[in-house]
Amino acid sequence: MDSRVRLYGCPVELTLDLLGGKWKTVILARLKQAPLRYGELRSVVPGLADKMLTQRLRDLEKAGFVERVKKEDGHVRYRLTLRGRSLGPALEALYAWGSEVAPHVGATFKPAIPVNGPRRKATAHRG
Amino acid sequence: MDSRVRLYGCPVELTLDLLGGKWKTVILARLKQAPLRYGELRSVVPGLADKMLTQRLRDLEKAGFVERVKKEDGHVRYRLTLRGRSLGPALEALYAWGSEVAPHVGATFKPAIPVNGPRRKATAHRG
Repeated sequence: MDSRVRLYGCPVELTLDLLGGKWKTVILARLKQAPLRYGELRSVVPGLADKMLTQRLRDLEKAGFVERVKKEDGHVRYRLTLRGRSLGPALEALYAWGSEVAPHVGATFKPAIPVNGPRRKATAHRG
Repeated sequence: MDSRVRLYGCPVELTLDLLGGKWKTVILARLKQAPLRYGELRSVVPGLADKMLTQRLRDLEKAGFVERVKKEDGHVRYRLTLRGRSLGPALEALYAWGSEVAPHVGATFKPAIPVNGPRRKATAHRG
């Protein structure tokens, strides 16, 4: 994270500057639920183009919120660092408010796109 | 608030869309502490130009987060509506995280500019 001294009007301004916009916050909220592979992340953040998702992930790694880890199954996953996890209560509050307000503003939520769904053949029995 | 049905990826995305950016969120966080006159608000949101503050306030009124009320002292103040107040926990969480992270990222906070300070003559004894 950038270590230059900066002057902010208030802590909320600092938080929003460090979060750096809507999509990074959305990505953090998703990774808070579980570490995810790139494809999984793409499926649960459907509003963001591939190229942008890659860029936002790099920014989040650089800012020390997210790290890439190789798991036992050999796959690389993105997960929150200690700093990323410290955002937990803020991300939960943003999530809770959005859930509560949704019916009042006529908002609904997209089902996640199945990972690799459009790329592999549908199987008759998925589970 | 806009009543068209909209499809969002997740509740966090909806919240951030409705908040509509950094400055509106900062204004809401300030008004959460107390209803404020325009000049007071300007002094506690020093990063935002006059014209922009006016515009953001109008947007927040239109979105149903903020209302203008005439108080007993005859002055108009901006205050949170019921919907604005429902954002309390989210604003508090953003504030708390910013306060906590500030020393780790070398961030400091500006003292509020005194209301009408630069425009009226300094008095020897302000009380």
